[in-house]
Amino acid sequence: MSSFSLGSLARRQFLRIAAATGTATIAARSAQAAMPATVEQGRKVGAPLRPYGQPSPYEKVVRVSTTSTPTQISSWDFTPLQHLHGIVTPNGLFYERNHAGIPNIDPRTHRLLVYGLVDGARAFTIDDLLRYPAVSVIRFLECSGNTLTEWKKPTAKTVQVSHGLVSCCEWTGVSVKTLLQDIGVDSKARWVVAEGADAGLMDRSIPLEKMMDDAILAYAQNGERLRPEQGYPLRLLLPGFEGNMSIKWLRGLKLTTEPTYSREETSKYTDLLANGKARAFTFVMDPKSVITSPSGGMVVENKGFNEIRGLAWSGRGKIRRVDVSTDGGAKWNEAALQEPVLEKCLTRFRFPWTWAGGSAVLQSRCVDETGYVQPTLQELVRVRGTDSVYHNNGIQSWAVASDGAITNVQA
Amino acid sequence: MSSFSLGSLARRQFLRIAAATGTATIAARSAQAAMPATVEQGRKVGAPLRPYGQPSPYEKVVRVSTTSTPTQISSWDFTPLQHLHGIVTPNGLFYERNHAGIPNIDPRTHRLLVYGLVDGARAFTIDDLLRYPAVSVIRFLECSGNTLTEWKKPTAKTVQVSHGLVSCCEWTGVSVKTLLQDIGVDSKARWVVAEGADAGLMDRSIPLEKMMDDAILAYAQNGERLRPEQGYPLRLLLPGFEGNMSIKWLRGLKLTTEPTYSREETSKYTDLLANGKARAFTFVMDPKSVITSPSGGMVVENKGFNEIRGLAWSGRGKIRRVDVSTDGGAKWNEAALQEPVLEKCLTRFRFPWTWAGGSAVLQSRCVDETGYVQPTLQELVRVRGTDSVYHNNGIQSWAVASDGAITNVQA
Repeated sequence: MSSFSLGSLARRQFLRIAAATGTATIAARSAQAAMPATVEQGRKVGAPLRPYGQPSPYEKVVRVSTTSTPTQISSWDFTPLQHLHGIVTPNGLFYERNHAGIPNIDPRTHRLLVYGLVDGARAFTIDDLLRYPAVSVIRFLECSGNTLTEWKKPTAKTVQVSHGLVSCCEWTGVSVKTLLQDIGVDSKARWVVAEGADAGLMDRSIPLEKMMDDAILAYAQNGERLRPEQGYPLRLLLPGFEGNMSIKWLRGLKLTTEPTYSREETSKYTDLLANGKARAFTFVMDPKSVITSPSGGMVVENKGFNEIRGLAWSGRGKIRRVDVSTDGGAKWNEAALQEPVLEKCLTRFRFPWTWAGGSAVLQSRCVDETGYVQPTLQELVRVRGTDSVYHNNGIQSWAVASDGAITNVQA
Repeated sequence: MSSFSLGSLARRQFLRIAAATGTATIAARSAQAAMPATVEQGRKVGAPLRPYGQPSPYEKVVRVSTTSTPTQISSWDFTPLQHLHGIVTPNGLFYERNHAGIPNIDPRTHRLLVYGLVDGARAFTIDDLLRYPAVSVIRFLECSGNTLTEWKKPTAKTVQVSHGLVSCCEWTGVSVKTLLQDIGVDSKARWVVAEGADAGLMDRSIPLEKMMDDAILAYAQNGERLRPEQGYPLRLLLPGFEGNMSIKWLRGLKLTTEPTYSREETSKYTDLLANGKARAFTFVMDPKSVITSPSGGMVVENKGFNEIRGLAWSGRGKIRRVDVSTDGGAKWNEAALQEPVLEKCLTRFRFPWTWAGGSAVLQSRCVDETGYVQPTLQELVRVRGTDSVYHNNGIQSWAVASDGAITNVQA
């Protein structure tokens, strides 16, 4: 099997989890009698089929919204990373970032207008787009504002709030290159302004080079049509670029010679440096990783074996390696990466940790295939200062107290 | 980019989709004026954030249940393959097959009892299992009854009903091998009886060899905890084996020397041959493929370029190749496979078809990495007769009439 393995670790000696769970072994002859209450419960006939399923009523795992906006219209909410597994984010828990609320769009009347420096402007229906060759990719999206509260001091109580503006789906749609080649592009075109149909008319300028590389007009996520909050019925997907550029509720692609310098790429979504100048056009999400379990707000309840689990991602390609430290960065050990490791996709890492019961500081550090090493927060601040809002990809530290309680720290 | 590409096809000459959509080109100066209605709609502030998302109200894509059972308690429903994209099935649309309804299980009181030929029986809570090293895999599950209506004559109107008892998720859980090694297995053990907590107490016997290979105690699907209809809070996952063996609502693993020969592996889930004998223990789902679009009940509306899309899978490993025929099997052409191609996982294939407007018969045929070639239905019937219920992996044929209407045929 191609799946994750602890490799040469002698599991049985190493784990001793069953022995540590506190459940005594049960004599063979009384095992059947020990079968738990669900057996009796199980004799009651269960519920019927449903056309569209929902989580168990016992599950209370939800997105939580920021407390820093006056309403939940122009606002964002966070994916519960500490409660999720693997690399796929279920559609109902994919993070939201909306600038003017979620429009209610009838797909039958929606159009994508492609205009400007093209061989004749055209308006496409969703059905038109479905006729094009399709492409599917599993890719992360991260808001450039992810981890924005953590520049100056540890603020978020949980990894959901510190890092929950990243999610990952299988997206399906039309390659922008395919569509533009089909209609013809003027040789003077260098930029494409993508325009949303939300009330804010969100727009961003994108280099034509990126659009002709791996940009996708996405109409589906994890198999089904886009969710409303993800841009239904159509969004742009720019793998590896900051999330706000993957314009949702996409209604226009205007081909131009220059960027449009819209509000959302000048006043917003630029990074103020210590010298008072702002970085413009910080498209790519740099390599980043975080330990999702155990993490802030959790308690390590058992000494001995504990698996450290986390996520790593890079807007530049594949994750090559993740190292984990349990002593605040003094020693680093390589974590196992769960296959498949895909470009511009979340990568799940796991590290077997034996907790002796004292205090510890847990950190992860990733390296991508370009050789970029995720910086410490201190390294990042030396270059960027602390006036930035966006693009904080510093190493996250979780302190474990001797009672197992975990808090957000800067180490 | 690593994604699907039409390769050396000259797209622009080949596609001419924009030209065929019937929308005339728009003069550059009136392009902005042609921006569709959603612009005005977009100026109304949209909806706020939601803790857990749902599909757009415009989407009516749902599972449909069989009409052949008296109630929807011991019954099944089908995944809408014709409306899905990529390889991931969203959790709400994963096919259901329940033998006694869906139990409502409180995860805090649920236990997994591991007993029989082990070094002391033990009862595990879900929290105990979460402490073990985790593994995540993207794997299909297929009911062995998938396509059961198609042995004698074409019956299902749509691919949802003919092939919709297959779905695919990213599953996370504990390797059974890890758990059994941790507690210790008696050297005489050869089989494991997996027992469900549903009212039918569904049970199946599984070779210990499979359990020590790639079996998983799964607690999550597509990132979140299992859905109730998928076995919440715990199911067995036996990649590549017929779906009913991946026991849901898992409450017991009994290690034994022999199979238990339960109802569901003797009276049911065996295949009656023409000679009156039944095949027992047909564990593995053989290679199978089907064209999902265009497919039964759809209408090909446009002459010229049409992308044929489908799914292929094998319980024996990776799909190596898929061929498509548009003339009922006289000529075959290789389809493109969407990366990543993973073992025991759905694989999306695509084939560029130019429809001249006449009648056609669309077929797909897969080959897996063991060299197994998906048989025609006639080849299958020669070996198996027509008294079988399960394990119909014959080639599916869709007839396209000259008006574009598509029906299920045997060709």
